[in-house]
Amino acid sequence: MKIAVLGPEGTFSHQAANLIDKKAEIVFVKTIRDVFEAVSEGKADKGVVPVENSVGGAVNFTLDALLDFDLNIEAEQIIPVIHHLMAPKEIELSEIKTLYLHEQTFSQCEDFIRKNMASADVVETLSNGESAKRVKENGGTSACMGPEIAAYIYGLKVIRSAVQDNRFNVTRFFVISNTETKPTGYDRTSVTVYPQIDRPGLLWEILGIFNTNKINLTKIESRPSKGKLGDYVFYLDFEGHIKEEKVKKALGALEKMAFVKALGSYERKY
Amino acid sequence: MKIAVLGPEGTFSHQAANLIDKKAEIVFVKTIRDVFEAVSEGKADKGVVPVENSVGGAVNFTLDALLDFDLNIEAEQIIPVIHHLMAPKEIELSEIKTLYLHEQTFSQCEDFIRKNMASADVVETLSNGESAKRVKENGGTSACMGPEIAAYIYGLKVIRSAVQDNRFNVTRFFVISNTETKPTGYDRTSVTVYPQIDRPGLLWEILGIFNTNKINLTKIESRPSKGKLGDYVFYLDFEGHIKEEKVKKALGALEKMAFVKALGSYERKY
Repeated sequence: MKIAVLGPEGTFSHQAANLIDKKAEIVFVKTIRDVFEAVSEGKADKGVVPVENSVGGAVNFTLDALLDFDLNIEAEQIIPVIHHLMAPKEIELSEIKTLYLHEQTFSQCEDFIRKNMASADVVETLSNGESAKRVKENGGTSACMGPEIAAYIYGLKVIRSAVQDNRFNVTRFFVISNTETKPTGYDRTSVTVYPQIDRPGLLWEILGIFNTNKINLTKIESRPSKGKLGDYVFYLDFEGHIKEEKVKKALGALEKMAFVKALGSYERKY
Repeated sequence: MKIAVLGPEGTFSHQAANLIDKKAEIVFVKTIRDVFEAVSEGKADKGVVPVENSVGGAVNFTLDALLDFDLNIEAEQIIPVIHHLMAPKEIELSEIKTLYLHEQTFSQCEDFIRKNMASADVVETLSNGESAKRVKENGGTSACMGPEIAAYIYGLKVIRSAVQDNRFNVTRFFVISNTETKPTGYDRTSVTVYPQIDRPGLLWEILGIFNTNKINLTKIESRPSKGKLGDYVFYLDFEGHIKEEKVKKALGALEKMAFVKALGSYERKY
């Protein structure tokens, strides 16, 4: 089996992919969108993408790609996020001049950075793996933050452990594929909802459909429709499987007032 | 008057600040959070921060800081976003090796990049001004995308104009200060809502309060509470001023089921 993952090696995505099947061949790609493309084009059987972090919030590239590609969410995974500060060799925090950070890592360690390394230049990268790679290449007084696996792969030294601001910090991943799942009795469904006509109270009516059908909504996210400002696509997660009667009924009612796209039903992990 | 803005020079924030008062002294700071701090500590009278883009979506650093600092949104501004591809000198697109891009700029020009410069390495930066600055420093086959003002300030050549994926692309900015505004009759109010107890149907009930009071909700965003996964703070925008009777009534009802923080009332610009 081939699993597409945001590369380079040494990211939390890499760690999440290892959990699916230790023997799988990992195909590293350059962007989250490339993960979707690899699975769509059959270059990988599954893809693993981060969807939200308990501190940093939604991963917008993933939300947008879920709408643009016709793939199915077959599973969710919850991975604890523990960031370590790493550098080519032991160094005082005050000596660090350049910090390579993935944007999410930056938001997850911001207090620590502001307290201890306020004068360091922050260079944003596309992944924690890339941060470690660039520290290895640039050496000297550069450092990065990321998963322990990155220090191992790129031969860096961990100079401070667990530097994230919140002790409770997890990332939720989606496993995407062409496979539809069967109900397990403890499932979650993700859909996008784009109102056909925007009018006052419409979102309230949409949420009312779930209330009427006794379906517990677990998440709502807004993303711009990429049309005019103030026009949004809503991403809803709710308990239940798309093959259950009450879910079918709710989605049927919803389709009368909005464009609905089912993204997948999968076993709940929280 | 002093206005704090995300630096360096040459960003859309810089352009937005110029619109408030051409004679104002612009204080450039390193992060969005620093803008809030400068205003809180009296180092600037006002601050200008991006809050959402019609394609890229919410600016999470701004949403989080609005909750953490006790400042007031005194105005919103809508700035059209036109990105230009710029380099030290005229160059073929296929020759560009490194692209410096702010994350929002990346998401706003992603199709153009994938079609024309798929093999270029993307280096994320903290601002469009920083992208231009780094292209100037690194020269050679590096390029960036950003506002025309950045090309002017850093002496770069615009090699392709208007490269953003959507012709309609605007960024909404907030002007933050310690000033409370008076109703103009055409206002919007922003609040954060954090449910005291999470239970099924609660968000539906919250939105119902606005419906009952005939208040038109114009936006809902979720941000993680930074506690457990699946626990959110909601950012709501709605029409009306906090000094209007029906808004007071709605917020009074809301406070019985959630922690509510008023972020400001200001004249609507869309």
